[in-house]
Amino acid sequence: MAVVPNTSFKEQLMQSIGPEVAKIEHAMRLDFQETTAGADPLLTDVLEYGIFNGGKRLRPLLVVLAARLCGHKNPEKNNESIHQLAIAFEYIHGASLFHDDVIDRADMRRGKPTVNNQFGVIAAILGGDFLLSRSMFLIGTHGGNEALQIFCQATNGMIDGEFLQLRNAMNCNLSEEDYYAVVTGKTALLIAATCEIGALAGGASVMEQKALAEYGISLGTAFQIIDDLLDYQGDPAQTGKAVGNDFQEGKMTLPVILVLAAANTKDTKRLLFLFENENARQSGLDEALQLIEKYDGFGKSRSVAESIVTKALSGLTIFQEKSCLPVLEVFKVLAQYVLSRKK
Amino acid sequence: MAVVPNTSFKEQLMQSIGPEVAKIEHAMRLDFQETTAGADPLLTDVLEYGIFNGGKRLRPLLVVLAARLCGHKNPEKNNESIHQLAIAFEYIHGASLFHDDVIDRADMRRGKPTVNNQFGVIAAILGGDFLLSRSMFLIGTHGGNEALQIFCQATNGMIDGEFLQLRNAMNCNLSEEDYYAVVTGKTALLIAATCEIGALAGGASVMEQKALAEYGISLGTAFQIIDDLLDYQGDPAQTGKAVGNDFQEGKMTLPVILVLAAANTKDTKRLLFLFENENARQSGLDEALQLIEKYDGFGKSRSVAESIVTKALSGLTIFQEKSCLPVLEVFKVLAQYVLSRKK
Repeated sequence: MAVVPNTSFKEQLMQSIGPEVAKIEHAMRLDFQETTAGADPLLTDVLEYGIFNGGKRLRPLLVVLAARLCGHKNPEKNNESIHQLAIAFEYIHGASLFHDDVIDRADMRRGKPTVNNQFGVIAAILGGDFLLSRSMFLIGTHGGNEALQIFCQATNGMIDGEFLQLRNAMNCNLSEEDYYAVVTGKTALLIAATCEIGALAGGASVMEQKALAEYGISLGTAFQIIDDLLDYQGDPAQTGKAVGNDFQEGKMTLPVILVLAAANTKDTKRLLFLFENENARQSGLDEALQLIEKYDGFGKSRSVAESIVTKALSGLTIFQEKSCLPVLEVFKVLAQYVLSRKK
Repeated sequence: MAVVPNTSFKEQLMQSIGPEVAKIEHAMRLDFQETTAGADPLLTDVLEYGIFNGGKRLRPLLVVLAARLCGHKNPEKNNESIHQLAIAFEYIHGASLFHDDVIDRADMRRGKPTVNNQFGVIAAILGGDFLLSRSMFLIGTHGGNEALQIFCQATNGMIDGEFLQLRNAMNCNLSEEDYYAVVTGKTALLIAATCEIGALAGGASVMEQKALAEYGISLGTAFQIIDDLLDYQGDPAQTGKAVGNDFQEGKMTLPVILVLAAANTKDTKRLLFLFENENARQSGLDEALQLIEKYDGFGKSRSVAESIVTKALSGLTIFQEKSCLPVLEVFKVLAQYVLSRKK
C-alpha cells in the first residue's frame, strides 16, 4: 500500500489502492452471489445493473483504510472480514442512488440509464429496499451493535438531509448554514461512518475513532462541494450528466450562496430572479454562469473545499507511529483525489 | 393474559391482549420520541401520520406472545425489553405499506388518505426508508445477530414476493403454487419472523422455535387469504377500501384460481377474459362475482384458510406445560380472529 513516487497522480492513486479496490469488488461479487441465490431473476438483474457499474468504491475503501490505519497495533483485527463490512457502504450508497433517482426522476447516471429508467420505478424502489436491508445485515453481523448504531445514525441523517432539501427546494434564501446541514446529512455523515466503523473494526482508541470520524465529515463535505461544482463546471463526457442540472432544478449550492452574499443589489436580484422562475431558468444558464464567475463563486467554493481538506488531514497527525505512515499517505492521496476529480 | 369465558369474541380478545397492545403502543411512542428528536419536522409528521393510525399491532403482539410462551422457564428473559424488539415489526410493516402504496399508486388506506396521497411520493419513499432502517437497528440491538439474520431473510422475502407479483401481474395462468409463493414472501415470512424472533428472545429450544416459525407461516398465509377474500367480500365502511380492487387490477387471488381450476370451459374462458381486459373489467365486477360464487370460490378459499389455521394450532401442542396454557389460549383466539376479522 506504499505510495510510489515519480508517477502520475492517477497512477500513484491506483498503485496505492488498486489491490484493495480489487478485493472490495471480489467481496461484492461473492456476497452478491450469496444474497441473490434463489432470488427473483428480475431482482438479480436490477441489482447487478445498479451496483456493478464502475463506481469508484470510495466508501468501502475508506472503511478498509481506516481499519488498516488503526489496526497496525492489532494485526488479529486486521483481517479480510473487513471487506464484508466495507461493502455494506457500497450497498447503502447504491440504495440511496436508486431512491434518489426515483425522487429526482433522473434518467441518466454515469452516462447510463438510471435503474428507474431501465427497469421502472417499482424495481428501483424495491431494489433500493433490498440493498438497504442487506447493508444493515452486513453491518450488524460483521460490525456489532456499536457499528450498527453509527450506521443507522448516518442513514437517518441521509433521510433527514433529503427532507431538509425537499423543504428547502423552493427557498432561495438558503444560508451557508442550511447548505452545510443538507451536505452533512446527504453525504458527509455516511463518509464519516465509513471512517468511524473502519476505525472500530481496527480496534481504534476513542481518540483515534473521533479523529477519523472528523476526517470523514470534512472529506465528505469537500466531496459534496466538488460534486456541486462539477454540476456547473464538469465535462458531460466525463460526468455522464448535463451541465447545470442544479440550476435547472432551482437548487441553491455553495457557489450561488457565496455570490448572493457578495454581489451588489442589482446582481443579487437578477440571480435570485433566475433561480426563482422556471421560465427564466430554461434559457438563463449562461447568464447565471456569468454572474457566478463575476463574483468568483466557483473559485471561492473550491477554496472552501481545499481548506476543509487541509483541516481534514491535519486531524490525522495523531497517527504518528512509523507503521502508520504508508496508510496515512493514501489518506492524503485520497483527499487530493476528492479535490481534483473530474467525475 | 387469561381468556375470560362467556364474553363476546371481541371482548374476549381485547381482555386477553389489551394490556399487551397498550404496552406496545407505549413503547412505540417512547421510541418515536427518541428517534425523531431533532429530526426534520416534515419527517416527524409523515411518520406520526403513517404509523399511529389505529393499526392492529398484530405483528408486535405475536413477538411478545411467542416470547411469553417460550419464556415461562426463563423469567429473566421475559422482561419488558421484548417490546423494543416487537415494535421493529410494526415499523417494517409500516415501511412496506409506505412503499407498496407508492408502487400501487393507492390513494386510500384504512379509510384515510395514504402517506403518498397526503404528503407526496418523495415523503413516502423516504419515510419508508427511515422505518426500514430503524427496524433493523432495533432488531440488531435488542435481538442480536441471529434475530437480525431471520429478520433480513423475511424482508428479502417480502421484496422477492413483490418482484414475483410484479412479474405475475399480467399472467392470468397463475397456479395455486405461484399464489402461495407470493403470499409467503409478501406476508407469511414476516409473521413467521415475529414468532421465531419472539421465541429466540424467550429462550426457546430449537424445537420450540421451529414450531413457532411454522405456526407463523401458516397464520400469515391464512391472514393473506382472508385479506384477499375481504377484497371481494369486505364492507368498505369497515375495510376502508373499495370492493374489487384486486379484480380492477387484474390481480389473480385464491378464489379466482380455485374457480379457474374447477369451472367448465365456457366459464373459464369468460372469467379469464374479464381478468385479461381492462375495458371488460371496468363494468365486469358483478359478472366476475357471480362466476366465482357459482363455483363457490369464496367458500373454498375460506375452507383452505380454516384448515391452514387448524394445522397452525396443531403445531403448538408441543407446549404442554401447565404454565403455557394461558398464552396458548391467546394464540388460539388470535387464530380465530384472523379467520373472523372484517377489516
